[in-house]
Amino acid sequence: MSKVSSPIPVAILGATGSVGQRFISLLNNHPWFKVAALAASDRSVGQRYADAVRWVLDVPMPESAKNMAIVPASTDAALAKVVFSALHTEIANELEPAFARAGAAVCSNASSYRRGEDVPLLLPEINAEHIQLVKQQRVSKGWSGCIVTNPNCTSTGLTIALKALDNEFGVKKVFATSLQALSGAGYPGVSSLDIMDNIIPNVANGGEEEKVEWEPRKMLGKFAGDKIELADMVFSIHANRVAVIDGHTVCASVQLERPVEPAVAIQALRDYAAPPSARELPSAPRPVIEVREEADRPQPRLDRMAGKGMTTVVGRVRRDPIFDLKFVVLSHNTIRGAAGASIYNAELLVQEGLV
Amino acid sequence: MSKVSSPIPVAILGATGSVGQRFISLLNNHPWFKVAALAASDRSVGQRYADAVRWVLDVPMPESAKNMAIVPASTDAALAKVVFSALHTEIANELEPAFARAGAAVCSNASSYRRGEDVPLLLPEINAEHIQLVKQQRVSKGWSGCIVTNPNCTSTGLTIALKALDNEFGVKKVFATSLQALSGAGYPGVSSLDIMDNIIPNVANGGEEEKVEWEPRKMLGKFAGDKIELADMVFSIHANRVAVIDGHTVCASVQLERPVEPAVAIQALRDYAAPPSARELPSAPRPVIEVREEADRPQPRLDRMAGKGMTTVVGRVRRDPIFDLKFVVLSHNTIRGAAGASIYNAELLVQEGLV
Amino acid sequence: MSKVSSPIPVAILGATGSVGQRFISLLNNHPWFKVAALAASDRSVGQRYADAVRWVLDVPMPESAKNMAIVPASTDAALAKVVFSALHTEIANELEPAFARAGAAVCSNASSYRRGEDVPLLLPEINAEHIQLVKQQRVSKGWSGCIVTNPNCTSTGLTIALKALDNEFGVKKVFATSLQALSGAGYPGVSSLDIMDNIIPNVANGGEEEKVEWEPRKMLGKFAGDKIELADMVFSIHANRVAVIDGHTVCASVQLERPVEPAVAIQALRDYAAPPSARELPSAPRPVIEVREEADRPQPRLDRMAGKGMTTVVGRVRRDPIFDLKFVVLSHNTIRGAAGASIYNAELLVQEGLV
Amino acid sequence: MSKVSSPIPVAILGATGSVGQRFISLLNNHPWFKVAALAASDRSVGQRYADAVRWVLDVPMPESAKNMAIVPASTDAALAKVVFSALHTEIANELEPAFARAGAAVCSNASSYRRGEDVPLLLPEINAEHIQLVKQQRVSKGWSGCIVTNPNCTSTGLTIALKALDNEFGVKKVFATSLQALSGAGYPGVSSLDIMDNIIPNVANGGEEEKVEWEPRKMLGKFAGDKIELADMVFSIHANRVAVIDGHTVCASVQLERPVEPAVAIQALRDYAAPPSARELPSAPRPVIEVREEADRPQPRLDRMAGKGMTTVVGRVRRDPIFDLKFVVLSHNTIRGAAGASIYNAELLVQEGLV
Repeated sequence: MSKVSSPIPVAILGATGSVGQRFISLLNNHPWFKVAALAASDRSVGQRYADAVRWVLDVPMPESAKNMAIVPASTDAALAKVVFSALHTEIANELEPAFARAGAAVCSNASSYRRGEDVPLLLPEINAEHIQLVKQQRVSKGWSGCIVTNPNCTSTGLTIALKALDNEFGVKKVFATSLQALSGAGYPGVSSLDIMDNIIPNVANGGEEEKVEWEPRKMLGKFAGDKIELADMVFSIHANRVAVIDGHTVCASVQLERPVEPAVAIQALRDYAAPPSARELPSAPRPVIEVREEADRPQPRLDRMAGKGMTTVVGRVRRDPIFDLKFVVLSHNTIRGAAGASIYNAELLVQEGLV
Repeated sequence: MSKVSSPIPVAILGATGSVGQRFISLLNNHPWFKVAALAASDRSVGQRYADAVRWVLDVPMPESAKNMAIVPASTDAALAKVVFSALHTEIANELEPAFARAGAAVCSNASSYRRGEDVPLLLPEINAEHIQLVKQQRVSKGWSGCIVTNPNCTSTGLTIALKALDNEFGVKKVFATSLQALSGAGYPGVSSLDIMDNIIPNVANGGEEEKVEWEPRKMLGKFAGDKIELADMVFSIHANRVAVIDGHTVCASVQLERPVEPAVAIQALRDYAAPPSARELPSAPRPVIEVREEADRPQPRLDRMAGKGMTTVVGRVRRDPIFDLKFVVLSHNTIRGAAGASIYNAELLVQEGLV
Repeated sequence: MSKVSSPIPVAILGATGSVGQRFISLLNNHPWFKVAALAASDRSVGQRYADAVRWVLDVPMPESAKNMAIVPASTDAALAKVVFSALHTEIANELEPAFARAGAAVCSNASSYRRGEDVPLLLPEINAEHIQLVKQQRVSKGWSGCIVTNPNCTSTGLTIALKALDNEFGVKKVFATSLQALSGAGYPGVSSLDIMDNIIPNVANGGEEEKVEWEPRKMLGKFAGDKIELADMVFSIHANRVAVIDGHTVCASVQLERPVEPAVAIQALRDYAAPPSARELPSAPRPVIEVREEADRPQPRLDRMAGKGMTTVVGRVRRDPIFDLKFVVLSHNTIRGAAGASIYNAELLVQEGLV
Repeated sequence: MSKVSSPIPVAILGATGSVGQRFISLLNNHPWFKVAALAASDRSVGQRYADAVRWVLDVPMPESAKNMAIVPASTDAALAKVVFSALHTEIANELEPAFARAGAAVCSNASSYRRGEDVPLLLPEINAEHIQLVKQQRVSKGWSGCIVTNPNCTSTGLTIALKALDNEFGVKKVFATSLQALSGAGYPGVSSLDIMDNIIPNVANGGEEEKVEWEPRKMLGKFAGDKIELADMVFSIHANRVAVIDGHTVCASVQLERPVEPAVAIQALRDYAAPPSARELPSAPRPVIEVREEADRPQPRLDRMAGKGMTTVVGRVRRDPIFDLKFVVLSHNTIRGAAGASIYNAELLVQEGLV
C-alpha cells in the first residue's frame, strides 16, 4: 500500500492476556505496523515477554516478541501512534481516554466506549463510513488521538451476515442463539470442571445477551453526518458457552421487510462486498462471507480459519416457519471477533488519513 | 401398587443398543415389570447378553441381564405382555404392528408411528388422557395389543415446559434452539473427530427439526373422543449436536396469548402437576418440573439426573424482547427422553387396564 | 455397628472446595458420623453453605448442608471429635496440629504430615495396623487428639494393587505412568483452554511424581512397634493430567521377587482381603480390588464408581518384557483417593477406640 | 532441488480416509510430486473427490483435488511412479506387491510389510542408509518398483529421540507409555461416547504395544549390507487412547550403556542432525528434535505443529530413579507419523535415484 512508507509503531495494552497474544501473533510481519511496546500489569513490568506470558495459542510465539521488555501502560511510555487495547473494561474506562488525549489512535476491543455517541463501533466491511465519527469525537473531546471500538465477538459474525441481508431485503427482527467458544472468556477463563461433558447456558451473567441485542443496531444504523441513528430492528438473544476452543456459532431466525427464498438470500450473502475503502486493506476478509451448502456446516473446528480467520461463514440458509429465514453463522472469536477486528479498524484509520 | 399382583413379563427389542441398555438398567428391580426376553439382531441371537453387548452406560450392567440368552425379535418368541421397542425406524415399521397384532402392548421409542391418527404420542405427565386413543386403535386395526409412542428426546422437555405455560397463559409461537447430547445418536453414533473442539449445527440431516416442529402440537392438542386436534401453535427449531454425553438443553423464546411476568410463569411451572392418573406411577417424575433460579442453570452435567432423570429442569426464565418469555429447558435424553418415557407409558397402560 | 451408640459429631475444614463437597456428600446419612460444623475461609464465614459454595459434583447437595452457617476454622468452634481436613498444605501445616492438640482426631487429606515419623499414612484395607502409630504420636506430641493422613490420590490405587502382589510375590521395582483426572486439581483448577484437545505431561510441577515415588514405600512398609520401616522398593513415576473429570488411571510395570504368570497374579489380586479390623467398616470397599478381563478396561467413566467409588479396579494384567507384570489400575480420586479415604480412616480410629 | 526437473506423478491409495486426506493436503504444491491419481474403494470410484470424501482436517481441501475423479486401485490405472499407500492392512497385503511388481515405488503407511527382511522401515532423519535395502529387495523379488515402509505413528517420535541418545550413550532398555490421539484410529474411528470424559487403556487390542516393542529395534538396527541386524534393546510399552485430536505423547524411561546427566542428554538431543542425504529434502524436519525446558511441555495442542508437524518435540528430560533418564516425546501422528513420513521416504528414494 503506497499509503505507508515506513512501519507505524504500535503498542499493545494487555499484551499477556489471550487477546493480547492474538494481537502479537497477527501483527507479526504486518505490512504497515510494527510492535513498539508491549504493556501489561505492574506485576509483569520489566520482565521479558516470553517469561511473563503463559502462551495459549496453537501458533508459536513470534521470535520478535520474546525478548521485548514489558512496559507499564502509561501514556508517556507510548510513542506509538496506534494503541491496541485488550484491557479489561474497568481499566479501559480510564486508560483509553488518556491515550486518546495523548494523541494515540486507540483501537479497542473493550466494551467501555462502544455505546459512546461519538465513538465508532466498527466492522470495516459493513460500516466503514462510521469511521468519520472520529472527526466529531476529536472536536467534542478536544483529543488529537481517538477511540475506535470493535463489537463483542458474538455480535460480529451475526451483524456481518445481517448486513448483507439488510441491504437487499430489510431486516426487522432477529432471534439468535449463540454457542460460544472458551477463548472468549480469556485465560484461565472457564474451569475445565465447568465445561467438560457440559454446556453453560449463560455468558457474562446475562451481559453478553444485552450487548448482542444492542450492538448490531448501532453498526447497522445510519451515519447521519454527526451521529449514528440506531437501526430499527429488535433482537432476542440466548447466549451459551460450549466446549469449543475457538469459533462462535450463532443460530439465527430473521424476519425481513421483503421476504425472499433461501436461494436468493444465499446469492445476496455471496455477492456481498465490503465498502470500497475497506476492501483492499491488509486484514480485509477474502471473501467477506462464505456460504456453505453442506447440511452440517459451518462447524467451528473446520471453518473458523476461513479467510485466515477473518471471513464470516454462513450455512443452512433455509425457510423459517415463523419468520422468513433460518441460518447458522460462524466467526472466529479471537481473530475476526477481537484482535483481528481492532487491527482491521486501525488499517482503516490509516487509510483514511486519521492516524 | 395394588394393580399389579405378580410381575408382568416384558420384552426389549433392540436390547443391545444404547437405548436398549437404558431399558435394561431402568427395568432392573422395577416394581411391576420383569424382563422376560431380550431381542436383538440375528448376529447376536443365542449369545449371552453380556457377551453380545458393548455396555456404554456409567452404571453397571444388572446381574440379572448378564446371562440371559438373546432371542430373535419374532412375535412367537414373545410371551411378553409389554414390548419395549428401541428399534431403528425401518425395522420398527414392520415389527411393531406385528407385535401389536399378536397381542402385545408395544411401547415404542421409534418415530415410525408417532404421527399415526390412532396412535397416542404420550408424555403421561401432560397428556395422559390421550392414552384412550388405544381403544380407537384396537377397533380400527383389529388388534388385541396396541402401539403407544413417546416423542423425540428433544421434543420431550420442551413440550413439558410448554404444557405448564399453555395451561395458564396459552402458547402461540415458539423459537427454540437445541444443544443435544451425543447419546441421542446411539452407539457408536457420533465420531469423536466430529465433536471434539466442535459442534455440529444439525441433527439427523434436518429431520430432528421437523419432528420438534410437529410433535409438541400433537401432544399439546385436544383429545376429541376419537382423535387428536393438533394444537394451534407454530414452532421454529434449530438443532445442534454438542460435546455432552447425556442431557439435551433447549433455549426457548415463547409468545403467549396472555403475556405474564417471569415470576408468574415460574410459579406456574413450579405448580404444574401431572394428571391424577399419571401422578403415582413408579416412573412418575418427582417433581414434574424443577425451576432453578441461578443465573447459569440448568446445566447437563449437574442437572440431568434430577428426579432420577425423569424431571424436566427449567431455568433462566426472563422477558423476551420480541416474544414474551425466554427460558432454558434440560431433560435427560435417554431416560425421560427415551427408555424412561416408554416405561412410564407402559405403567399408564397397566394402570388404565389396557394391558 | 454396635460400637457407635449415638452419632459422632464431625467438622469439615475446607468445606466449600471440591474435596470438601465430597466430604459433605459422603457423610450424608453416614451411620456413625453427623456433620456438626462446616468451616471455610473468612470470606465465607457466616453465610449459608448453599450460598457460599459453588457446587461442582454431579450428585445434588444434601439438604442437611444447605442451611448450615459456615464457621471459622478455629479450634474452639469445634466441638467435633473428628475433624476432616480438606485444607491446602500451607494452612494444614498450622491448623491440623492445633486441632489435634485441642483433642480432635484430625483425618487429613493434605500432604503436610504424611511424612511425619509418628503420623500414620493410612489405607485401612492394606495397612490398618499402622494406625497404632497414633499412640506413639500422642506420647511424643502430648496431644489428646491426633493426626492421621491418607495418601495422594495417585498413590492410592497403585499402592492397593501393589499390596496384593507384594504379599504374595514381593514387589521390587515399579515403573508407573498416571493419567490423572481434572478434579484432582480442585476448583477452578485446570483451565479448559489448557486441557481441551490436550494433555499436560506434569502435575504439581513435578511434586506429584515425588509423592508417588515415596508414599507407597511408607504404606507398604513394616510397622515396627514405634515406627514404620520403609519398604525396600524403587518407584519411577510419570504424571500426566488428562481430560477426564473423575478417576485416576495408572499404567504400571512391576518387578517381583518371585515372578509369576499373569493368571496367578490375577488370582492374588482377586483374593486380596483387607485386614480384619478394616473389613466391616461402613466405607470399606467391597471388593477391595476388582479385576476386569476385557482388553480395554478399566476406563474412568465406566469403572470409577465401582464399589461406590471405593473399590480399586485393575485390568490388562499381562507379562512385561523387561520386568514381570504390566497392568492398569483405576481409582476414584476424590472418593477413594480423597474424602472417602479420610472417612474410612476415621472409621478405623473409632473402631480401634482411638476417638 | 536440481534432481527433479519435472513433477513426478504420484498416486494415493485410500485417498478418502483420514491419512489419505493428509497425503492430499501435504502434497498440495509439493516441489517434486504432482498428484495424478486418487484411488479409493469401489463405492467411490467415478465420483468427484469432493463428493466422495468426508473431509475431517482443519485445513481446507486443496482446490486441485476437488474435481479429480476417483479411480480404482488397480495397477494399470497407475501411471504414477510413486504410490502412497494409506490402505488397511489386509488390502495392503495384496495390493502393495502388485504395484511394486508393476514398477511403482510404493511408500506405505500400512503395517503389512514393515517386518519384511528386505523392506526398509524408514525414518530418513535416523536411518536413511536402510533405503539401500531396496536394491536387495528388487533382486530377491524381481520387482522394478519397490516397497518402502514407515513405522507406526507411536514408534515414530520415540525412535527419533532414542536415536539421538543411542548414538551418544547407547540405549539398553525402554519403558514407555503412550497417550495417543484420536486421529490415529482413522475416521469414524473412536466413538465420542467412548472417549468423552474418559481414556481407553489399550490401542488396537494390544497390537499397538507389540509394534512399538519391535519396530524401533529394526530402525535403530545396523544395516549390514544385505540385511538389518535388530538393535539389542528391550522395550516395554503401555498404549492408551486419550481425548486429543492430533499428536501422540509418549512418556519414556531409558536405561543407557553410558549414563549421563540430563543436561548432557538435552545437548545430544539438540545437536542431533539427520544423515546428510536426508537433511535437505523438502519434508525434512527443521530441526529434527526440539527440546523444551518448561516444566509442562510438550503438549499436543501447543507443540504438534512444530516444524510443520515434522519435528519431534522432547521435554521434561530428567533423572529416572530406576533407569537413567525420563522424558516426554511428542510427535504429530498423521504428519510425521503417517502421511508426512511416507512422503519424506519418497523424497529420499528420488534423491537416491531409486525412483
